[in-house]
Amino acid sequence: MLAITIPEPGGPEALVWAEVPDPQPGEGEVLVEVAASAVNRADIMQRQGFYDPPPGASPYPGLECSGRVAEVGPGVSGWSVGDEVCALLAGGGYAEKVVVPAGQLLPVPQGLDVKRAAALPEVVCTVWSNVFMVAHLRPGETLLVHGGSSGIGTMAIQLAKAVGAKVAVTAGTKEKLERCAELGADILINYREQDFVAEVKDATGGAGADVILDNMGAKYLDRNVQALAVNGRLAIIGMQGGRKGELNIGTLLAKRAAVSATSLRARPLEEKAAIVAAVKEHVWPLLAGGHVRPVVDREMPMSEAAEGHRVVEESGHIGKVLLVTS
Amino acid sequence: MLAITIPEPGGPEALVWAEVPDPQPGEGEVLVEVAASAVNRADIMQRQGFYDPPPGASPYPGLECSGRVAEVGPGVSGWSVGDEVCALLAGGGYAEKVVVPAGQLLPVPQGLDVKRAAALPEVVCTVWSNVFMVAHLRPGETLLVHGGSSGIGTMAIQLAKAVGAKVAVTAGTKEKLERCAELGADILINYREQDFVAEVKDATGGAGADVILDNMGAKYLDRNVQALAVNGRLAIIGMQGGRKGELNIGTLLAKRAAVSATSLRARPLEEKAAIVAAVKEHVWPLLAGGHVRPVVDREMPMSEAAEGHRVVEESGHIGKVLLVTS
Repeated sequence: MLAITIPEPGGPEALVWAEVPDPQPGEGEVLVEVAASAVNRADIMQRQGFYDPPPGASPYPGLECSGRVAEVGPGVSGWSVGDEVCALLAGGGYAEKVVVPAGQLLPVPQGLDVKRAAALPEVVCTVWSNVFMVAHLRPGETLLVHGGSSGIGTMAIQLAKAVGAKVAVTAGTKEKLERCAELGADILINYREQDFVAEVKDATGGAGADVILDNMGAKYLDRNVQALAVNGRLAIIGMQGGRKGELNIGTLLAKRAAVSATSLRARPLEEKAAIVAAVKEHVWPLLAGGHVRPVVDREMPMSEAAEGHRVVEESGHIGKVLLVTS
Repeated sequence: MLAITIPEPGGPEALVWAEVPDPQPGEGEVLVEVAASAVNRADIMQRQGFYDPPPGASPYPGLECSGRVAEVGPGVSGWSVGDEVCALLAGGGYAEKVVVPAGQLLPVPQGLDVKRAAALPEVVCTVWSNVFMVAHLRPGETLLVHGGSSGIGTMAIQLAKAVGAKVAVTAGTKEKLERCAELGADILINYREQDFVAEVKDATGGAGADVILDNMGAKYLDRNVQALAVNGRLAIIGMQGGRKGELNIGTLLAKRAAVSATSLRARPLEEKAAIVAAVKEHVWPLLAGGHVRPVVDREMPMSEAAEGHRVVEESGHIGKVLLVTS
């Protein structure tokens, strides 16, 4: 098969579409013929040599895919050859075929094109596990989403609105904020021009955000804690602004607040399967009903993954950049 | 009535046993004739002028008491004059009488002397709300308790053992560690001589602590995060080592871990009542069965509260220092 390989870490040109051996499904695994994958920031870090795949994972990038079941390994029930699926991956989505633990498969939601389903697994599992399973966002509460126009952001807005929460977002341009508003965001903050702490407090009668979904890490840590409401929960899923930051424990304690940080990729299979099962139960009906939809910036051929990485690195996109095999 | 007043903040001598007006129970409140209160570090901060009582609270120190119901205010059911009780307070325990919101009252556990019951409310509510309601310590997990011989520590050891967890403690002397061992602690760490991160990892096969109950704040923040296991939860309840510390978000994220910080005193009545109700359901049966008991260092007359503060400030005590009215 063909796959995007990384012979040497580097810029986007380090991604090479090359002939590699077909993967074989083992016990509890399914072979998927890939229709599409999507670009995640973790793929860029892997390309740069900063984020090696976990032990046992495919060496090729790609944390999600959609496609059709091509082969069912021993000990797998509930899936058949030809089923349209999408999947959360530990790697290997940038390829014509990929092997997936059965617990990480989801059906393509009713009414959705198989390719566009590749935009779902990472963002839906990340948002659901952090905002709902860890931070327990409740109806009537306020969620602050940093990077509201990203793939994660566009899904977080929709899911939070679907459960009856109020949503604040940050983004860097008027156009991005307008797209967030179309998806349901109530409070729009241009981080280049406005102080998100002051804006969130203003918009919540001084209370602050009950939950914050953050991809910036250290750079926003102190301000995120300032922006939290009493009993607030800061869920960190990225460190685009650095790894080490000053935590004001006095403020955290006065607010009885909490800071969590998670990633999906390194989790053991049973934790991934539990998240995927929760997503299937809670989010799939919203997708099938059309209440929530994947936001796709563009589709491009997988062989041109380098261009996809350039698009995401320039941050001009809104939602997900898909890489399609044909 | 007589109460410990603080005419001017300062050292232990700032505490003055003086005649003050009797408090009157309002709607939903009960007047308790105090048999005993207990010294908490927050009382020392209040005496020093660093921790004012929350709005509406008694101006006198004392975050817990035991005694007998002397009067029942309007709208209170389930309590009668003469009932032996103990109570979580927002202040005012260092007095002959105190008014208590009914939701913060607990019966004196079966078989326990009414005075000794004053050792329970703060430590039981603090440990239960943090270790169990926030951090969800589970059977088989490992809890690290800093200050294992403190009032909080001695209760945390017993409750964690009662639910089937493994317990590691830090303390500063051999004698304190021996008392922790008698209460059930499995892993004894002298923080003056040993590195608690290395000791906890050694004792858990490299895994680390699933839950840490911390009273040090900034000084231990980085090492606490290092000592956490995957999916670990750090619950901060004090800042004896400072308010602002460096948080390594990279380590937190790699472990999918969380940091929370809480205090009891400033919580709204309904949250306190929920904690007290949970404690009554889960901890009171353990006390009545003799599986868990209050650890009392000494009793002294309430009029000599200054001496009680000296004892706690010197940190030579093990468990609680009680102040009794007669």
